Amino acid sequence: MEVPTFAHVQAAAGRIAPFVHRTPVLTSETLDAVAGATLLFKAEPLQKSGSFKMRGAANAVLSLPEAEATRGVATHSSGNHGAALSRAATLRGIPCWVVMPEGAPAAKRQAVAAYGGSIVPCAPTLKAREESAARLLAETGARFVHPYEDPAVVAGQGTCALELLAQAPAIDLLLVPLGGGGLLSGTLIAARELAPAVEIVGVEPAGADDAARSLAAGVITPLPRPETVADGLRATLGELAFAVLREHRCRVVTVADDAIVEAMRLIWQRLKLVAEPSAAVPLAAVLSGAVEAAGRRVGVVLSGGNVDLPR
Amino acid sequence: MEVPTFAHVQAAAGRIAPFVHRTPVLTSETLDAVAGATLLFKAEPLQKSGSFKMRGAANAVLSLPEAEATRGVATHSSGNHGAALSRAATLRGIPCWVVMPEGAPAAKRQAVAAYGGSIVPCAPTLKAREESAARLLAETGARFVHPYEDPAVVAGQGTCALELLAQAPAIDLLLVPLGGGGLLSGTLIAARELAPAVEIVGVEPAGADDAARSLAAGVITPLPRPETVADGLRATLGELAFAVLREHRCRVVTVADDAIVEAMRLIWQRLKLVAEPSAAVPLAAVLSGAVEAAGRRVGVVLSGGNVDLPR
Repeated sequence: MEVPTFAHVQAAAGRIAPFVHRTPVLTSETLDAVAGATLLFKAEPLQKSGSFKMRGAANAVLSLPEAEATRGVATHSSGNHGAALSRAATLRGIPCWVVMPEGAPAAKRQAVAAYGGSIVPCAPTLKAREESAARLLAETGARFVHPYEDPAVVAGQGTCALELLAQAPAIDLLLVPLGGGGLLSGTLIAARELAPAVEIVGVEPAGADDAARSLAAGVITPLPRPETVADGLRATLGELAFAVLREHRCRVVTVADDAIVEAMRLIWQRLKLVAEPSAAVPLAAVLSGAVEAAGRRVGVVLSGGNVDLPR
Repeated sequence: MEVPTFAHVQAAAGRIAPFVHRTPVLTSETLDAVAGATLLFKAEPLQKSGSFKMRGAANAVLSLPEAEATRGVATHSSGNHGAALSRAATLRGIPCWVVMPEGAPAAKRQAVAAYGGSIVPCAPTLKAREESAARLLAETGARFVHPYEDPAVVAGQGTCALELLAQAPAIDLLLVPLGGGGLLSGTLIAARELAPAVEIVGVEPAGADDAARSLAAGVITPLPRPETVADGLRATLGELAFAVLREHRCRVVTVADDAIVEAMRLIWQRLKLVAEPSAAVPLAAVLSGAVEAAGRRVGVVLSGGNVDLPR
């Protein structure tokens, strides 16, 4: 798997521009006062399909040659990537299949269906999921689009930092949620050429700190059972992201779940944005002191806003 | 009380520009599909202090001559206007007093205090509130800034439509929440010169339909006890707004509380915006069929996002 370059991120930006929002950068003087810093929030909950995942999915779908694209795309992520891929495929007019365990939350099934994806049910085990996906690909000839182990997806996610760095100049520190690593590696690639002086830090939940462990061990070290309220960040760091993080000597910090919940509450209350727990992880790093933000201009990527709302 | 003109709205826009956000216009293909229309949401929950009230309050405070301004400003609105006026006064470096009944919700007291306003407690009766305000004004020489019976406030609220009409061209229909009428009358004044073909409709809760009754009766007709979930729209239509609505032959429609709650839920879910019930009233008019939106380009003013969040 080839690591994408800055040129790939730039090409992605041009390719996906008609299909994604240039999301605004929001600020709050109250949060600035609490942090003692200038916080610049990239508001990806306002992105199409409700998260930055639309960027990578759109780039992957739009990059496919016509002959391959007509056979469709498939994935087994039932979260934001599954919804985003469904939407990207619908925009291109090609089919999308999402392998999803029986018993998955209704909200996730509805999101995929609403965006035009077809749900392929499977038994709720990893083995059943992989077998269902393999059978589906064999039968349809669809292209499998992994949520982060895919250069086109990583290049697409990099467009988020491309925009933020253009919208909010002179950022000192850029904080990015870290799960599988697609967003963080795309950000590192985008920022290296555009703003090499910016410090980029990945933030992961303490209960899903496989990236911190992997970087320390020098080898990908999955957690047997990640446990965190930030469900979007439970994925294991990918090989592609691992290589990029190591090359960039990227720093990774962790935050506890209670800090994540408190940060999420502040985002809802102060930025008036519906943010999912995963999106609150970077602000939690500022407020808990896991990163030194005082006196700095800090870019904070709010990754998405797909949560089940109470009645 | 003189009715402000389009020139006053333009002057307000220039005056307040450094102190307010040019809030984005958000869209949702899902909501468009539900409505059968193109909906363009002006996102005032992202406004400073969390609502459009910042516009009018900033214009009122910045319009004061220096000699008068130094004595400060006061109001007895404990909602969004009280918070916005506190913030505007702090920006100008002058004092702000907010007369507030003992037992007002902690969130409202905190908002005023956080923005630098001083709370003047009074007994929870209209008489006590008016006496406290009168005493305060006599003692301090502060200028009373009414939440909507004030030409500078109305001109400031008009800047919201000024922006929306520039950001989203070719709007056919513009829907505005209607309580005291400051936002709606400012909108009518702004749009008449800028986009005279746009139909502007005020939307009020069925349980607080004093504006519809007042227009029908030809005289302001307060409700003895307005009852609606949209707490920001319980105020009685002001004289100033009444005159502007009559002059423009503005249409007013009403929506039931259950439609308001459902619209609010859709805004949170689809636009990822924390909107207060009052802000959802115009979308409720679209979804309940109170206005004919099908096939049209519809501007929807989301007025604010100040709600108490559950833990």
